[in-house]
Amino acid sequence: MTERPTVNLDADNQIEESTSPIYSSDLLENEKIHTRINLINEEIKRCLLDEDGEPALLYETARHLILAGGKRLRSLLLVLSCEAVGGTVIDALPFAVATEFVQTASLIHDDVVDEDNMRRGVETTHKKFGGKMAIIAGDLLVALAIKLIGERSTPQLLTYVAAGGIRMCEGEAADLLMSQKKDHSYTTKAALEIIRMKTVSFMVSAAKVGAMLGHANEKQMEALVRYAEMLGYSFQIRDDILDIVATQNGTGKTVLSDLKGSRSNFVLAHAIENCSPDQRKDFAKKLSDGDVDFILERIKEGRSVEYSTEIAREYLESAKRAIQGLNFANEELLTLLADFAMNRLY
Amino acid sequence: MTERPTVNLDADNQIEESTSPIYSSDLLENEKIHTRINLINEEIKRCLLDEDGEPALLYETARHLILAGGKRLRSLLLVLSCEAVGGTVIDALPFAVATEFVQTASLIHDDVVDEDNMRRGVETTHKKFGGKMAIIAGDLLVALAIKLIGERSTPQLLTYVAAGGIRMCEGEAADLLMSQKKDHSYTTKAALEIIRMKTVSFMVSAAKVGAMLGHANEKQMEALVRYAEMLGYSFQIRDDILDIVATQNGTGKTVLSDLKGSRSNFVLAHAIENCSPDQRKDFAKKLSDGDVDFILERIKEGRSVEYSTEIAREYLESAKRAIQGLNFANEELLTLLADFAMNRLY
Repeated sequence: MTERPTVNLDADNQIEESTSPIYSSDLLENEKIHTRINLINEEIKRCLLDEDGEPALLYETARHLILAGGKRLRSLLLVLSCEAVGGTVIDALPFAVATEFVQTASLIHDDVVDEDNMRRGVETTHKKFGGKMAIIAGDLLVALAIKLIGERSTPQLLTYVAAGGIRMCEGEAADLLMSQKKDHSYTTKAALEIIRMKTVSFMVSAAKVGAMLGHANEKQMEALVRYAEMLGYSFQIRDDILDIVATQNGTGKTVLSDLKGSRSNFVLAHAIENCSPDQRKDFAKKLSDGDVDFILERIKEGRSVEYSTEIAREYLESAKRAIQGLNFANEELLTLLADFAMNRLY
Repeated sequence: MTERPTVNLDADNQIEESTSPIYSSDLLENEKIHTRINLINEEIKRCLLDEDGEPALLYETARHLILAGGKRLRSLLLVLSCEAVGGTVIDALPFAVATEFVQTASLIHDDVVDEDNMRRGVETTHKKFGGKMAIIAGDLLVALAIKLIGERSTPQLLTYVAAGGIRMCEGEAADLLMSQKKDHSYTTKAALEIIRMKTVSFMVSAAKVGAMLGHANEKQMEALVRYAEMLGYSFQIRDDILDIVATQNGTGKTVLSDLKGSRSNFVLAHAIENCSPDQRKDFAKKLSDGDVDFILERIKEGRSVEYSTEIAREYLESAKRAIQGLNFANEELLTLLADFAMNRLY
């Protein structure tokens, strides 16, 4: 059990988290997880080498972000779900890699949409290679993913994969629309709905595909889907918190990008919800003006980071409960993954 | 047998084509083709109604271009390839619709890349709904296509579909890169290579999928692939000619968009190839300046439209030859499709 991270808001509105050693967020410290992430990374590299076509610059563009690292959380979820019910890493690996390809494609397109400059500690793809090449490279990664899973797929698996993709697009669009009206309708409930569409649905698809590859029975499938759902909420709320507290070096994303930019953020939604009616009227204007001090002051007043941490923690506990008592071979690793989603510093 | 279209270049560089009645380009005049295109269109509408999720604006964005019409050439090729070897329209229909979804997604992303304003006689998707929503809507159409074919697919079919997608992305990227250096290396050979990647490969995938759904034998498959290849070259060179000769109303694309913009064009490549060394040096600058008069003058001098028409015609004849003597049930319709690809006015 890890300690809940504490958040200090100092007078200058610099938000920092305690980094006490008891609060470890490094998933790689676990040998088994380490091995699996290494396998996923090696397979990603192998697939990209296999698929090194022309023009070379297109493939370089497609590789840029995916080889810059990343948590590999979704692919790990897929692998662990497969193993939980008796499948092997090897069964899951091509699908895990495809998941990372699609996830990366979505991030590349996202960054074009958001005009972000930094991601995973490197320049965003469109910033480095131009928006045009970035859009095509994202499409290429999707086509490569279809090729990867196509060779080993079944209709039911593909249906899950497609459903995940559809929900992800819906979430992206909902997020985009919400961002254009951060007003009275922007509540924590609305923010959770966007998280459900944008993050949770893809996590659920990953878990379903993994579970199915391991030939899960109905009860096992249900538990893993519930686990993935709860994990998804916990993970994304933590992401939203990090976007507010972390420095640019920490996350590789521009500090406070959700606030200034066009993305839904649970912490922000809570702060708006807790404003006085007068402040709330101001909020939309202050947001579009990029008045970060005003916004951080509201977040502080509303204790929105603390509240969000509490909520994320509840989801974490639900995730852990979901997988208890099912004799999953790797319950310990699934628990570790959930802890990481919640407690990570990056 | 239709007459070869004649092209008149008048003194004002207004290029017009004769529209003698003997030169019919309306594929819909054939009752059987008409029926098949109607079926495809009805199925597209049905699928889009089935898939009417939230947010509504995302689905409206995804529907915009695909419901604006289009030649449905690739889906028709898929259907006819299936029927040629004894399959039915019904077998082919979900895959035909998926083909149109992917093709439309690619056009939507293309138009974002090219910043074009008009397509199929309507505003481009990004112009109407914004670039951000357009990128997401393109991704959604791909996910919907995967769903459609997923339910009925086999690993081998998916491999063909993925290969088509990969080649299309490669072609897009090659086109983009070539456009940035319309200089000495921009030859008809280079333009044909881009056509091969950008257009031919997707046509081949459509024919392969259709043929496979109809359980083609090896010889039949080979013939239909060859047919699709030749059809693809003929179709795209005709497209390049139309971009130069057609008015905005005719094609729904901005007049001379390839010249001014960032796209490879076979006619243009021929004109550059036939320039004197001095003129060639000027070409890149004149292109980026948008000096349309200079360019049209070179096209006229080089008789580049006439040359391109001749080449497209040769491909057309090769397409027709490819399917002869195989007792395809619908040889007449395949021949008609090839004639249309070459002789169409839109």
